[in-house]
Parts: sequence; C-alpha cells; structure tokens
Amino acid sequence: MSIKYMCLLSVRSSCSSHGRVCASPVAQQRNNSTSPKIKVDFDQSTGVAVMQMQSPPVNSLSLDFLTEFSIATEKLEMDKSCRGLIITSSQPKVFSAGLDIMEMYMKSPEHCGEFWKAVQEMWLKLYGSNMVTIAAINGSSPAGGCLMSIACDYRIMADNPRYSIGLNETQLGIVAPFWFKDTMINTVGHRTTEMALELGMLYNPSEALKIGLVDQLVPEDQVVTTATQTMTKWLAIPDHARQITKSMMRKPTIDKLTSNRETDIQYFVNFITKDSIQKSLGMYLAMLKKRKG
Amino acid sequence: MSIKYMCLLSVRSSCSSHGRVCASPVAQQRNNSTSPKIKVDFDQSTGVAVMQMQSPPVNSLSLDFLTEFSIATEKLEMDKSCRGLIITSSQPKVFSAGLDIMEMYMKSPEHCGEFWKAVQEMWLKLYGSNMVTIAAINGSSPAGGCLMSIACDYRIMADNPRYSIGLNETQLGIVAPFWFKDTMINTVGHRTTEMALELGMLYNPSEALKIGLVDQLVPEDQVVTTATQTMTKWLAIPDHARQITKSMMRKPTIDKLTSNRETDIQYFVNFITKDSIQKSLGMYLAMLKKRKG
Amino acid sequence: MSIKYMCLLSVRSSCSSHGRVCASPVAQQRNNSTSPKIKVDFDQSTGVAVMQMQSPPVNSLSLDFLTEFSIATEKLEMDKSCRGLIITSSQPKVFSAGLDIMEMYMKSPEHCGEFWKAVQEMWLKLYGSNMVTIAAINGSSPAGGCLMSIACDYRIMADNPRYSIGLNETQLGIVAPFWFKDTMINTVGHRTTEMALELGMLYNPSEALKIGLVDQLVPEDQVVTTATQTMTKWLAIPDHARQITKSMMRKPTIDKLTSNRETDIQYFVNFITKDSIQKSLGMYLAMLKKRKG
Repeated sequence: MSIKYMCLLSVRSSCSSHGRVCASPVAQQRNNSTSPKIKVDFDQSTGVAVMQMQSPPVNSLSLDFLTEFSIATEKLEMDKSCRGLIITSSQPKVFSAGLDIMEMYMKSPEHCGEFWKAVQEMWLKLYGSNMVTIAAINGSSPAGGCLMSIACDYRIMADNPRYSIGLNETQLGIVAPFWFKDTMINTVGHRTTEMALELGMLYNPSEALKIGLVDQLVPEDQVVTTATQTMTKWLAIPDHARQITKSMMRKPTIDKLTSNRETDIQYFVNFITKDSIQKSLGMYLAMLKKRKG
Repeated sequence: MSIKYMCLLSVRSSCSSHGRVCASPVAQQRNNSTSPKIKVDFDQSTGVAVMQMQSPPVNSLSLDFLTEFSIATEKLEMDKSCRGLIITSSQPKVFSAGLDIMEMYMKSPEHCGEFWKAVQEMWLKLYGSNMVTIAAINGSSPAGGCLMSIACDYRIMADNPRYSIGLNETQLGIVAPFWFKDTMINTVGHRTTEMALELGMLYNPSEALKIGLVDQLVPEDQVVTTATQTMTKWLAIPDHARQITKSMMRKPTIDKLTSNRETDIQYFVNFITKDSIQKSLGMYLAMLKKRKG
Repeated sequence: MSIKYMCLLSVRSSCSSHGRVCASPVAQQRNNSTSPKIKVDFDQSTGVAVMQMQSPPVNSLSLDFLTEFSIATEKLEMDKSCRGLIITSSQPKVFSAGLDIMEMYMKSPEHCGEFWKAVQEMWLKLYGSNMVTIAAINGSSPAGGCLMSIACDYRIMADNPRYSIGLNETQLGIVAPFWFKDTMINTVGHRTTEMALELGMLYNPSEALKIGLVDQLVPEDQVVTTATQTMTKWLAIPDHARQITKSMMRKPTIDKLTSNRETDIQYFVNFITKDSIQKSLGMYLAMLKKRKG
C-alpha cells in the first residue's frame, strides 16, 4: 500500500486540490451562523434524507459543524418517517478533511474538552443510528472524515485515484483514540487496523476497496445515485429486525465509549494541550501555510 | 453480493425447487415417530460416522428433528471409537431449510420455549463436539441450516449456483440471536457478519466461498466423497491436541450461551409470541401457501 | 492449503534440508556459552539494529538462546537511539525451527518451568516492543519461529516454495498456548487461526501471503535489504504516536499473559511432563534420529 502524506486535520481557510488538502491558518471571518454548514433534503415519499456537507472549503469538522451535524441527525432520528440517511459532500474533491485543527491549537483546555465532546457525539449519533446510513464518499476522506464514513452502514466511494481515505492521525504525531480504532477493527479487522493506524495510512479507492474500508467504487458522478439505489435494497428489510441486529453488532463498541466519555475527554485534553503536541500542530500549520503561499 | 429471497423457515409440507423452498402450511399427518428423521452410518474401521438428514421434504428443524439430532450426536460423542462426523442431506436440493416455522406459529409460550431449548442444544452439541465435524452441504442451507453448517469444523458445498446459504432471518422480520451472530463472526469476521445479518443475505456457493462462509466447492456428486477424504486429513492429527485446540478457540463463545440459556429462551419466547411477529409469520405462511397453490 | 509434515520442535544437532528440518537427538557438546547465539549490529546513524540468529544448525529456541535473545532485545529497547529492529537468520534455509525439544524431554518440572518462562519472556519483549520490529524470514519458520515472526510489526519472507511457516504444534500432539493463539488471531483472524491450529498447518510463502501470515514476499537475497527499506517507511512516523497506537492494539493481548504467567507455566509443566506427552516426544525424537540415519 502506498502511504501518502495528506493533511490529517484541516483548517477553515484551507483549499483543496488533487487529493491534497492544503491550508493557511490565517484568521478569517467565521461563517455566519445563519449560513448552515449542513443541508438536509428529506424525501417523505421514500423515507430517505440526503445530507450535504457544505462547509467551505473542505468540510472541516469544527465545533460549529459538529454541533450542527448532531442536531440535524438527531432531528431525522426522531422523525419516524425517516428510515435512511445518505451523507455526502457538496465541496469539490473532498468528503471531509477531518477534525478542525483550529479547535485544538492554542485553545483553552475547556474549549478542547467541549470540542472533543462534540466529536464523540457525532460518532455516537452516527454509529448507533437506527436509520440506514450510507456514506456517499465523493472526495478525499482522511482522519475524522474516515471515521464518519466507517460509522455508516455502507460506503460508496468515487473511483478517482486522486482521492484517499484512512485514519492517518500518526502522520501528524497524534493518535486515533480507542473508539476510532474499534470502529476500524469492526470494519477491516485487527491486523489491517494495526498497520493502518501505526503507519497512518491513506488508501486510494482501489486499495480501500481491497481491504474492505469501502464497500463499492463507482464513477464520481454516480456516487449519490448509487447510494440511493443501495438504500432501496436496505430499506426492503423490516426496520425492527434490522435495527435489533445492528444494535447487537455495535452496542458493545458504543458502550465502551458511553461508559468512558469523561475519561476519554480528559485523556484527549491532557494529550492535545501538551507543549510538544502543540508544537507539532504549530509546525504543521506553518507547513500548510507555506504550501499554500 | 446478490440478495435472494428465500424462505428462512420451513414447514413440514413444503416443497423445494430451484433453490427456492416453497411451502404450504396445510395440516398434514406428522411423520410417524418410528420413522427416523436422521440416519446414521458409523464405519468402525475408519472411526467416521455419516449422518443423513432425511426428514421430507426439506429437513425442517422441528422439535422432533432437533431432539433426534441431539440424541444421535450425543451417542456418537460418547462412543470413543467415533472420531469424525459428516453431516449431509438425503433430500434433493436442500441441506436443511432451517427452523420449522410451525413450532413457533400459534403455539404456547411453553412450546416455543421447549423448541428454542432444542435449537440451543443442537448448536451446543455441534459447536462443542470433540469429534471432527464436516458439513457436506449438498443443497440450500438458509437460516438454521446455515447455523448447523457453521457450527461444524469444515464446510464443503455443492457447486450449484441455484443453492444458497446464509443467515437470512431479518428478511422475515425476525432476528438471529447473539450466538448465531457469534458463530458467524468466528467464521467470516465482524464486518461481513454485520452486513450479512442486517440484510439477511443469502449467498450462492461462489459468493459463500469468497467470504469464507464455506471452505470448498465441489461438483454435487462429490460432496460426500470429498468430505470423507478431508476427514482423513483431519484425523491424522492426534485427537487430544486437536480437541484442546478446538475448545480453546470455541469455549468463550459456548460459555456465553451456557451461562445465559434461560435468559435467551425467555427473550426468544417474548419476541416470537408478540402479536406483530405472529402476524408476520402468518403473512409469510400465507405467502408460501399462495406460492405453492 | 497443503499440509506438510515438518518438525515442530528442533534439537540442537538437527540438520535442515529442502524445507524439512531433520534432527538427531544424540548427545553432543553444547555450544560454548562464550559463543553468542545472537549477533547484533546496531547502526547509530539510522537507529536500526539488525539481529542475526546464529545458533547452528537451525536456531532452536533453547533456554540459552531465549535468554540471550531477551537480554539483547532489552538492551536495544533501553537504548533510546535504537528505534528499529530487524530479526533474521544467518543459518541456511531456516529462520528458526522453534522451541528446543531437548529442553522439555526428560527434564525436571523445574527446568521445564524455567524454560517456559523464557519463552513467555521472548514473546512479551517482542510483542510489546516500542521499537519497530521487522521479521526478515529467510528460511522455514515453524512453531516458535512462527510465533517470533508474528510478534513483529511486519513480516517479509523469502519467496522460496521449499520454506514454510505456521503454528504446527498439534502435528506433534502438543498444543499452542492461548497467547500463541491470540497473536495468530490478531494476525490472520479467528477462522483461519482455528483451522491452522487444529490442523497444525504449515504454509508455503504464497499461501502465507494469501492468508496474511506474512506481509510481503521477495527473492531470498533481498529479504534483509527490503526489510531495511521498509524500516525507513515505518521510522518516518513520529515514535510516540506510533508507540501509543501499537500499545493500544496489543496491550489487551499482552495483559492476558502478564496477569496469568504463573498459571500458564503450571499448565505447561503439567502438560509436558505427562507420560503420554513425554512418550510422544520420545517417539518424535526417534523418528528424527531414524530420518537422519
């Protein structure tokens, strides 16, 4: 497998090209909170909602984004007429570039903790959803973007060799927490996870299909339509039987986090606020800035 | 993978054709209890017993069948000269069509509980057997038939694309219990099990081989002879070393059920006697009747 | 998969040819303790140590060998400038033939216990190492040799069809203990492990690659150079992130042994000193002697 160097984390002002996410950490106006980062189209006739991530430039998982995501997902979850959720990106070339680095660089422990809680919440909502969830991965999907994908029931990726997907945290000197790891093991098995996480591997679509990190490759313009067709197949199964089965498969993994959320937050905050880690993040940001410049 | 719609459960009066098991729930005389549902040929010279399932039309796992199966298996287990067991079907086109739906439709909670205990017993006997167990799958093997297959040490299937195998419980609105799931995970891994069980997937022989649900495909008329040859290979290993190793691999999974048998029975009885589930079963039986008609 | 009959255990006087390790149990002078069984070359400039196993004829894992191995590994582990370890063999045709049978045949329970503790120590040191560990498998690697290989982070094997690798304990009537089994499951999954251990399977390089028992095959003369190149890739990852990730993946498996070392030793001593097992070992030694003769 090839290992590519790609940003693990993104910043709001970053730009994306050719499968690389480059960014500049310069301050800029935050998106107005009235401009939604997520657009949801729910088709009452099919029971399927399509969620478009539309937070330029690269759908960074900022605190605002994650909060909006969890609220939107919760709303659909509560709506008994909504049985399926397709998640995709309206941004070119990227599904989601992962956790927003600006939420953990030079921030207070309190802010870091609040941010991490929102990351947990996103995963808990998605991995434990009663809806059928399909990731329509129409661009690169490193780190947090990969987590979001593997938390779904099914993954369809654009067959574009410039895109990549993987949990590449170690490349930046940080570590995927245990529940990222558990979700990965549940998807591709123990050995592949071990090597993928230790090396921070990013896989192109063919490689990702081969190891089972995604389930299907289609041409880029057919990702969402294929997701819609696949959804029909999943919705042919009686909801209650599928939901009980899904819960049986995923509950142990979910319980491990729900019974350790505070500890996990403390662990993250202690780790990320270390001088050495902050220095790493700073150097990384400088590198991104230079690359963009 | 293709998903085919096939009966999960069977009824005694069902007929089978072209990989589909169709059935009519009309009342009919039960097999005389003096007519054995299982025929065992034990070759003292090789130490290998061949068990033929011969309960027309589709080897439904009725209470009587399961009781007879467990008694026959226990007898062989107790006979120290019997080292290997090959399980196959004498019925055309089907290995076993799975649990007998008539044992749980319009039956008392007591009867349902007794039936479920017999299902548990079958699995416990087979998954924990000290003998080398080989499934010679010479026909379709949905649901309970698949469970029986994956409880063996090795699976040889007839290479007939009309046959299928899988845990397709959700297709009927019911749920494979945790020990079906655990046996499946131990065979094909977590991710494949998750998708297979949520969608109630039935695999044709080639697909089943690809995901590791069966170990080998051979022409239909060579299934039992290949099983016999394979058995020789397994019996070349000293029994005590193989048995300790097998127990080490399977004991945790077996212990999970043995320490929760009553709870599991209660859970099943509560589930299956629900009005909504009984209604599902009734509609399913009506569909089978119509299909046959 | 083909099953080959190969020695599980080796004796110091054994010879090796054509992928078979044959041995004679005749008494012979033990290697002088001043003649090291392990040669370590540490390149300060790269931070990589190459460990050559050089205990003729087949790198049997004797008590002396294991003690030397653990001391050498511990030394490198303590040296913060050493970040990577490549393990290979200087003996022709064999990586390591596994545990030295002479350490457990006709020996006191005390000696067997001391020996087993040394086997545990080797695995604990290797599986839990903070260094990047790569097995450069330039010859056959049965039983204990296979354990040593799968305890590393990455496995490169010589593409010579005469070589084989696997946990073949049952072939000799003994049983791979639970931590051999756990390491194997973590490498190739539950089902492959179950069949491999029950049948005591030895895989040729192509088969081993296919099931994931090794990661890469190269021509025999490129095994170590490829290991060196691969090491560079692994060392590009920040040590602390890789080490935390590795520990997260392996700690549960390691903890199972560390919290049960004494019980595991007692279990082994009781098992190996049984008359029936000693008789098996005796017959095995006689067979080796005859084969050599």
